[in-house]
Amino acid sequence: MDAAKPVTPRYPPRLNPSESDDLAQAVKNWALAHGLTIRPLPSVVPDDVDPQGLLAINVPVTLFPSPFPRQCFDQARSAQQTYNELYAAISRDEEFLAGAVEEVRDGDEFTSNLWNVHLRVKKEGYTQNLSLGLFRSDYLVHQDLSGNETQQIKQVEFNTIASSFGGLSAQTTLLHKFLSTSEYPLLEQPIAPESLMLPENDSVRGLAAGIRAAFDAYGDSELGLERCILFVVQDGERNVFDQRHLEYALNNTPEPVRVFRIPFSKLLDHTSIAQTPKRQLLYHLPRNRSKTFEASVVYLRAGYGPSDYPDQRAWEARYHLERSAAIKCPTVLSQVAGTKKVQQILASPRPANGPSALGRFIPDDAPLTAQVRRTFTNIYPMDTSEAGLKARQFALDPELCLNYVLKPQREGGGNNHYREDIPTFLEKTPESHWGAFILMELITPPKQENIILRNGKLEEGGVICELGIYGTCLWNQSTGQLLRNEEAGYLLRTKGDTSNEGGVAAGYGCMDSCALV
Amino acid sequence: MDAAKPVTPRYPPRLNPSESDDLAQAVKNWALAHGLTIRPLPSVVPDDVDPQGLLAINVPVTLFPSPFPRQCFDQARSAQQTYNELYAAISRDEEFLAGAVEEVRDGDEFTSNLWNVHLRVKKEGYTQNLSLGLFRSDYLVHQDLSGNETQQIKQVEFNTIASSFGGLSAQTTLLHKFLSTSEYPLLEQPIAPESLMLPENDSVRGLAAGIRAAFDAYGDSELGLERCILFVVQDGERNVFDQRHLEYALNNTPEPVRVFRIPFSKLLDHTSIAQTPKRQLLYHLPRNRSKTFEASVVYLRAGYGPSDYPDQRAWEARYHLERSAAIKCPTVLSQVAGTKKVQQILASPRPANGPSALGRFIPDDAPLTAQVRRTFTNIYPMDTSEAGLKARQFALDPELCLNYVLKPQREGGGNNHYREDIPTFLEKTPESHWGAFILMELITPPKQENIILRNGKLEEGGVICELGIYGTCLWNQSTGQLLRNEEAGYLLRTKGDTSNEGGVAAGYGCMDSCALV
Repeated sequence: MDAAKPVTPRYPPRLNPSESDDLAQAVKNWALAHGLTIRPLPSVVPDDVDPQGLLAINVPVTLFPSPFPRQCFDQARSAQQTYNELYAAISRDEEFLAGAVEEVRDGDEFTSNLWNVHLRVKKEGYTQNLSLGLFRSDYLVHQDLSGNETQQIKQVEFNTIASSFGGLSAQTTLLHKFLSTSEYPLLEQPIAPESLMLPENDSVRGLAAGIRAAFDAYGDSELGLERCILFVVQDGERNVFDQRHLEYALNNTPEPVRVFRIPFSKLLDHTSIAQTPKRQLLYHLPRNRSKTFEASVVYLRAGYGPSDYPDQRAWEARYHLERSAAIKCPTVLSQVAGTKKVQQILASPRPANGPSALGRFIPDDAPLTAQVRRTFTNIYPMDTSEAGLKARQFALDPELCLNYVLKPQREGGGNNHYREDIPTFLEKTPESHWGAFILMELITPPKQENIILRNGKLEEGGVICELGIYGTCLWNQSTGQLLRNEEAGYLLRTKGDTSNEGGVAAGYGCMDSCALV
Repeated sequence: MDAAKPVTPRYPPRLNPSESDDLAQAVKNWALAHGLTIRPLPSVVPDDVDPQGLLAINVPVTLFPSPFPRQCFDQARSAQQTYNELYAAISRDEEFLAGAVEEVRDGDEFTSNLWNVHLRVKKEGYTQNLSLGLFRSDYLVHQDLSGNETQQIKQVEFNTIASSFGGLSAQTTLLHKFLSTSEYPLLEQPIAPESLMLPENDSVRGLAAGIRAAFDAYGDSELGLERCILFVVQDGERNVFDQRHLEYALNNTPEPVRVFRIPFSKLLDHTSIAQTPKRQLLYHLPRNRSKTFEASVVYLRAGYGPSDYPDQRAWEARYHLERSAAIKCPTVLSQVAGTKKVQQILASPRPANGPSALGRFIPDDAPLTAQVRRTFTNIYPMDTSEAGLKARQFALDPELCLNYVLKPQREGGGNNHYREDIPTFLEKTPESHWGAFILMELITPPKQENIILRNGKLEEGGVICELGIYGTCLWNQSTGQLLRNEEAGYLLRTKGDTSNEGGVAAGYGCMDSCALV
């Protein structure tokens, strides 16, 4: 450390205690006035104080938008439509997906069960050709430590089910925009509004438009019923306003669409399948089963991980949805397309002769394919192939393992093993199950700092920012025709750099937005 | 009661318990997602659970919009610009206001003290000619019990200071609009969306535009300072989001305006007056007094009643504001124009020869004047004039008093005496103070029912609906020129018909919106 003045002033600015308090107040009030909210944790409001769930608190959020390289932001956005197209194509390639599932079958009962749902429906035949994807591709900025100075985005994962926070991220951008004129210019180390480049964020409108497109494409009810959209949710969801904003956007149009929320655990109670060749999914109003609607779109905000399937009945519920005529977001095929195994296969290097794994879905030599490929980091199988055996060496080596993260197939935070934990974990795990994991080279994002307001307390320090780009895609599984393919806004999710897992709702990360630099 | 089917279905519909629960859930979630919120009462969330004020709860609100006669609604809206003009004219008529103050001086120390603030500033000379009014004229529908079937609006009061709920009432209209498509059609006794006529409600935008007009009219700072708007508020305000929505609307424009909130009790600490002939009001950022702004508009959401003036220092603070060059919303003169005494004088019948009290301000024979006059109910002085002596007879008579309410001058609920309480109250009050009250014939609104969601509980039963029409007016006190005169949306505030006082924040009434019939 030397006393020389830094070339750029410190960002975010050093705040004195009064500034911190005032800024936290401003954030809190704006958030509560604009539904940038979440249900409070029991540790903040004990259940006996609010048994009915009457209260809301601001979602954890940064006091400042985090600097993000414009070129990386643009790179991620401009890749999204190609990614949509790619994952639509993967979802249609049953043979490819079957191979991926086969490779993880031994160690990943969840993905196997999911695949079995598909096989059962396949036997009787699907009755809905259209498939809806509300995707989110997540990236970190990678700063090559070995001399190459260029910053690039590297994909962390591609979410094909329950991509969350789109309902709140547009609001977060607006919050930071508000602060950029009302608060930041008043600090001891002021920030001029025009110095912050805050890109527009259309995530709520974009995601709702995707769902609406599927609703419209489904067509009228042949049964003469009113149609609806089902949001399938988890019981006791705290991140409910994120989901509600999409529901409200679907209502707030000249021709509102009816949305019902249904817990995954109640699917078999409140839906049935019409005794017709088309197998329409019928929703029965729980308080009066004689009121029946035809569900044209099923949007899953649950069912992405094992905990939503505690028993065979839950798997029957998923089968029940899958065999119905409703347009699923996602189908089982799309969900499986989002596994880490698929991500690892796609990232395999192109062999000297013949097409790459990626080239199976999009033209290998197209510039857009190159753009997507540039977002890949090194990912290895953990199976008994040549590449897999090499990866096992990395993973077990006490030095080499420090550059990697070991990931299972399933979505949702908390399941990954990082660096020195990898050998320990593998030693406890039967070797026959190792193939269900992938080994991913850690992306090394630049050091950043920010201040997070969480449950009324400020947390300051080093952070890592993960960019997610939303995309909506509606396609025909039989013909491959894309009926819709749009980029749909972004999420910036920020977490402390000492923590290894993100996810605002889980109590780790927080909402943020991009200040392009 | 007979078993014959009613001609019109019951409104609001009879709900079964599941319907009540579902509707309450829908209201609660929409409200929390859209800032239709308030800080929870300590009885709902004890202060030790949330000492920082992190939480919000939905504002008390009806489950259904209340039917309101369209003709009465139109009558109220179309009278607003004339009312704006009338109260601007009254504010300019110091002689008239002095007379009104004189009449209540003995029993109303508060109004006298207010007037003294004006007299002190008058002595040194006002330095700001412009005056801003964010008014609200409140009405009940009157159904004449004596055979005349026509429903008419009758004015309850005219608010010239701190007219509240404009920030929440636009949202309440949107809530009911949402429910009209998402929930009401699904009830056992369904309501079709097209059968509910929900008028647009532009209160947030309209009130913010009024404040903005004053900010623009003030002109640039001659001191070269950045200008700002001050919202003067009460300590510990629970109805904070109502006020915040106006602040956010002032920010959410291509040229945002800086707004600071300042408690009335801190005015002398954080503002000063420039040592210039113009006497600019300077706001010093509390956390750093060297950051100084010129306050061009002062919007009072405090200072309307005696409890904001616990000591002489509070009166000095009001004097301090009044003598400054800031455009006041309102000035002392405008505030005094809003007293019940003025309302009573205006409502005096036109004498056989000569102009009416109303005719002093707006042309007695104009159609618009007649329109305003039709909104008056009978209001009598309680002084020793001929009319006053007659009123005292009514007030003391155990039978006749049942048709009246006795009101003091000051704003804010809780100070009125109704019906049989009037004689008892007067007997306890020195006769020399009676003149500070006015006696108002009770308006007899039609019987209505509704269901109120308050703190998670439903209250069902007879209600009374009070319509408020907002108006914004900017005028020159010297020349009388109107720089702005606009109607600015509406408030429907509903309370149980067994309670005598409204006011959602005080825990009595609730937010509502109009379904025109």
